[in-house]
Amino acid sequence: MSEILDLAGIFVFALTGALMGVRKRLDVVGMAVLAEMTALGGGVVRDLILNVRPAAFVSLGYVLVPLAATVIVAFWHPHVARVMPAIMVLDAAGLGLFSAVGTEKALDYGLNPLHAVLLGVTTAVGGGMLRDMLAGEIPTLLYDRQLYAVPAMAGSAAMAGLYVTDLHGWPATLAAALLAFGLRIAAMRYGWRAPLARGVRPSE
Amino acid sequence: MSEILDLAGIFVFALTGALMGVRKRLDVVGMAVLAEMTALGGGVVRDLILNVRPAAFVSLGYVLVPLAATVIVAFWHPHVARVMPAIMVLDAAGLGLFSAVGTEKALDYGLNPLHAVLLGVTTAVGGGMLRDMLAGEIPTLLYDRQLYAVPAMAGSAAMAGLYVTDLHGWPATLAAALLAFGLRIAAMRYGWRAPLARGVRPSE
Amino acid sequence: MSEILDLAGIFVFALTGALMGVRKRLDVVGMAVLAEMTALGGGVVRDLILNVRPAAFVSLGYVLVPLAATVIVAFWHPHVARVMPAIMVLDAAGLGLFSAVGTEKALDYGLNPLHAVLLGVTTAVGGGMLRDMLAGEIPTLLYDRQLYAVPAMAGSAAMAGLYVTDLHGWPATLAAALLAFGLRIAAMRYGWRAPLARGVRPSE
Repeated sequence: MSEILDLAGIFVFALTGALMGVRKRLDVVGMAVLAEMTALGGGVVRDLILNVRPAAFVSLGYVLVPLAATVIVAFWHPHVARVMPAIMVLDAAGLGLFSAVGTEKALDYGLNPLHAVLLGVTTAVGGGMLRDMLAGEIPTLLYDRQLYAVPAMAGSAAMAGLYVTDLHGWPATLAAALLAFGLRIAAMRYGWRAPLARGVRPSE
Repeated sequence: MSEILDLAGIFVFALTGALMGVRKRLDVVGMAVLAEMTALGGGVVRDLILNVRPAAFVSLGYVLVPLAATVIVAFWHPHVARVMPAIMVLDAAGLGLFSAVGTEKALDYGLNPLHAVLLGVTTAVGGGMLRDMLAGEIPTLLYDRQLYAVPAMAGSAAMAGLYVTDLHGWPATLAAALLAFGLRIAAMRYGWRAPLARGVRPSE
Repeated sequence: MSEILDLAGIFVFALTGALMGVRKRLDVVGMAVLAEMTALGGGVVRDLILNVRPAAFVSLGYVLVPLAATVIVAFWHPHVARVMPAIMVLDAAGLGLFSAVGTEKALDYGLNPLHAVLLGVTTAVGGGMLRDMLAGEIPTLLYDRQLYAVPAMAGSAAMAGLYVTDLHGWPATLAAALLAFGLRIAAMRYGWRAPLARGVRPSE
């Protein structure tokens, strides 16, 4: 069950990577590299910090799913781009899931709650940051003021809170993921924005 | 004592990260990400290479201090920018400290002196390079010809030299850090510059 | 023997890094950083994922050879640039070697063949991607449509295929490296290109 959810999150993240490749007019190899990096980057960094072999290098699906996403985008990207609003919803689901699962894994490996939250957020947003950097752009996360890291942080904090009160298992993980997902959707729906430093005018 | 010095270095590096965020008109989340990456990036890379859990994921202060630096910059950045010359001096102190401490840790983990110097320099300059790349710029270190990596290298080499002659402990660390600090200050004061390749004209 | 081949590959990759530094008018420190990163980056990432101390931090030659390449480029870069076609051939040799050796090491550490191929390709192309990102460019690999990752993938796949049929040892490694080398040379010679996503027009 958790494996399937994981692969679903990887698939959606890979779609955003491959679509970025199309937008930048990369060839299919470049699209595949971006898809793999976006989908697997956050988890690889998490596992390197936890000092375990990255999950992406243990399970076959982790490598194959981004390739499938690349093929789909290469052939049907106008259709994929047309369903972009739906993809953004799925991306929010991936964000929620990865922040909850990443935090839980960090807690399982003995990190204290604050560090586990930091690592959970890294898992959720790391791949997207890598994707943007590879594509020659400042990571969207840093400047676009839409709340993206903050919902991940809320989900991670909820996961850590449930964990330290001994509420483990998939219902806790799902609840934390849903919180992050809901906040991300609400942030998009209502245009919630992160503040700028005092006195800084927005660039638009 | 060494913990306090470490946190001071982290604080100053985080200030430069958050200020870069203001300059790029990032929101506060982006500022916090840059602050954390600048302050912790070099040490995390060092510890990944040494194959130990990164110090940033063991001690709470390492995560909280960059957040405090972000809050300070978000509210009072015009004042912070005004004291930039003082910050550059503190940054030189952080550079010295991180190169000495990073080299020592690498030697403690059994690296030979040359590799320990390489890793000490990585510790000192890695976070700043990450900061510049995330902000969409070529790392200052690579092109601006001011001596920055070279003082770090001198401090690291001094640390390694003292270590192999069995002079351990904080006086040795402090001496090495002071050498790097002094060279960095002198480089700024007297405008010492790294040479270009033969026949290459400066870009300014 | 394998050590010498490894150092030859490192030397060529370091040349391309230092030359990128000249093109971007970096100072000699920046050139050295680019040379080290280009030459060692792919292998360091591979070893971090395999959870072993990076080879670059065990053997002295790995650190010194890129410095030698930097000195050569700093003094004689017009001559080095003039022999660029020869360097591209050597770079193809480095690509082949690194993909074969990287895949073999990954298999030795128990990765299954698909993951080993992924890691072999990472070893071969990772340093060049880092070089381009540090120089403020989108990695050439992603967009320029010349086949570069694909020959590496073929060499890695051949290595994995030989390995699982119990053909180990340097003849197998050499055969896999030669396959990647030959494909890369043929791709340059005949202008083989990776396809774009359907309907995307080339940028030139």
